Amino acid sequence: MSMNRTVRLVKRPAPGLVSPDCFEIRDEPVTEPGEGEFRVRAEYVSLDPAMRGWVNEGKSYVPPVALGDVMRAFSAGTVEASNHPEFREGDKVVGLFGVQTHAISDGRGVQRVDTAIAPLQSWIGGLGMPGLTAYFGLLRVGEAKAGDTVVVSAASGAVGSLVGQIAKLKGCRAVGIAGGPEKCRALLEVDGFDAAVDYKAGDLGAQLDKACPDGIDVDFENVGGEILDTILPRMNTFGRIAVCGLISAYTATSVPPGPVNLRYVLTQRLKMQGLIVFDFARDNAVALADLGAWVKEGKLKLREDVREGGVDAFVETLNLLYTGGNFGKLSLKV
Amino acid sequence: MSMNRTVRLVKRPAPGLVSPDCFEIRDEPVTEPGEGEFRVRAEYVSLDPAMRGWVNEGKSYVPPVALGDVMRAFSAGTVEASNHPEFREGDKVVGLFGVQTHAISDGRGVQRVDTAIAPLQSWIGGLGMPGLTAYFGLLRVGEAKAGDTVVVSAASGAVGSLVGQIAKLKGCRAVGIAGGPEKCRALLEVDGFDAAVDYKAGDLGAQLDKACPDGIDVDFENVGGEILDTILPRMNTFGRIAVCGLISAYTATSVPPGPVNLRYVLTQRLKMQGLIVFDFARDNAVALADLGAWVKEGKLKLREDVREGGVDAFVETLNLLYTGGNFGKLSLKV
Repeated sequence: MSMNRTVRLVKRPAPGLVSPDCFEIRDEPVTEPGEGEFRVRAEYVSLDPAMRGWVNEGKSYVPPVALGDVMRAFSAGTVEASNHPEFREGDKVVGLFGVQTHAISDGRGVQRVDTAIAPLQSWIGGLGMPGLTAYFGLLRVGEAKAGDTVVVSAASGAVGSLVGQIAKLKGCRAVGIAGGPEKCRALLEVDGFDAAVDYKAGDLGAQLDKACPDGIDVDFENVGGEILDTILPRMNTFGRIAVCGLISAYTATSVPPGPVNLRYVLTQRLKMQGLIVFDFARDNAVALADLGAWVKEGKLKLREDVREGGVDAFVETLNLLYTGGNFGKLSLKV
Repeated sequence: MSMNRTVRLVKRPAPGLVSPDCFEIRDEPVTEPGEGEFRVRAEYVSLDPAMRGWVNEGKSYVPPVALGDVMRAFSAGTVEASNHPEFREGDKVVGLFGVQTHAISDGRGVQRVDTAIAPLQSWIGGLGMPGLTAYFGLLRVGEAKAGDTVVVSAASGAVGSLVGQIAKLKGCRAVGIAGGPEKCRALLEVDGFDAAVDYKAGDLGAQLDKACPDGIDVDFENVGGEILDTILPRMNTFGRIAVCGLISAYTATSVPPGPVNLRYVLTQRLKMQGLIVFDFARDNAVALADLGAWVKEGKLKLREDVREGGVDAFVETLNLLYTGGNFGKLSLKV
């Protein structure tokens, strides 16, 4: 009998990076799907910045992962047994299957995907939550339009890289903020950003001034902290700040200060708005039609950072997201 | 020959309250209006929180008052000489006439008002910029609708008192934050707020919890700082924060910290948006029709705090706004 290797949350992490002792890796018997259920064998587990918040207690947009539960995660895999009328053995699927090698599902929130359009791992990346986040965040919350200057932080991450490319497709000037010359070079040469700003190279303000000679119309904010504070005074009147993430705060060991430049929200009449991709689910078809076409036409390059080590490597791989260690959409190959 | 008593900015103030030596009071000869101009004799000079920003250097929504210039201010008065085709001697008018007893105007931005509808000073209050600010801020930026819980800070000020009353007229629950039992009592008994929170009485969070059992849908933010930080975690999903003012920061002597609870903008998908009343000028007619009707029907009470002392009292009276010393729309009788 095959076993299901699970990663269960057993302790809430202290502020900072997640320590391995917060999770237990357990081999449990694989169970059979009941009526109306199917079993999926995971092939790629998605690692997303939001996970750091999911293990904290307190009010948020989803309840925290309960102690003892399998860690929440999107993953992509293959249906290997089914008593569900809509899913058949061999189907490739994506869903919130958790950090484990096998999962039982009743199909709620699960999408069947087509690996003829893009490889399986892309369906948890550019054609999954990160792609939808970039699309809705830039176009709906950010209201980007041709001629706008769009700045995106964490630009070499799963979402940021797509934000820049979609901005270019829509006729915007795309400016990416990333850490180090290698990432910045890739933004320019591979993703086609107009300018790249290396936040590790110092004087972020002067770099932004040079990269955004006409000011900033849209800030797709993934980071917060000092980066947001440097962007705020450079926003144009009626600019939009789509708050997608505040990753600089996720692993802070004390509560980080808020933006001291908040007054520009008032004086420049900025709109700062939070973005959770699930809110746009009823328009996923529209977004995926666009994203799929761009991928097929080669107009959208999906940078994927797939790591080995299986579910055992969950914690150390997750922490890469908070230390700038990944380069593109991070996932674990199971 | 009569003289024009002017208050001119001669020095930029240091951070903090405005010191009197930043202004010079000068008697200057009254001049005659040229072709297409008229002269107005000021009766009420409006004192507004935004004035503290107008005397600072730096990028804002209007250029700073230049050194040597008459201090910028709205005032209400009577036309006493005119070579302008649209304004006649005796007309009651409101405009950006500055802190002085007499002003020459070419009519740009000037409104003729009717003291049969409301007394002259109300046209720089509930039927002037503060009224329009409350109206557009609550209904357009804040998107308040029946059933919403609306919180407004500086609720006994010129704008705040109107925000609460308009919220009630629109079927919302109105909660005001003000300083001291006297102001809080007036919010309940005169303005008809549903609840009043005294920020000087301590434990703002517990008071807000009690006043807002269903959370907060709209925050009409006049203050910022600790008050905004206490409101943020109590905002409902998809709540709106209309940033009308951040008065707690205007006279801070060091840069005050930003909101540490910014993350709720993300997790609760809040919209935080700056509000400058001039942006809505093309809809002033709509707003004034509503506001005027409410005033005539006695549904909107205009709390006015008119001070004596003429333009000479400008600095000391202005500073009342930043120390909680006013109670309603503050103006100087000339």
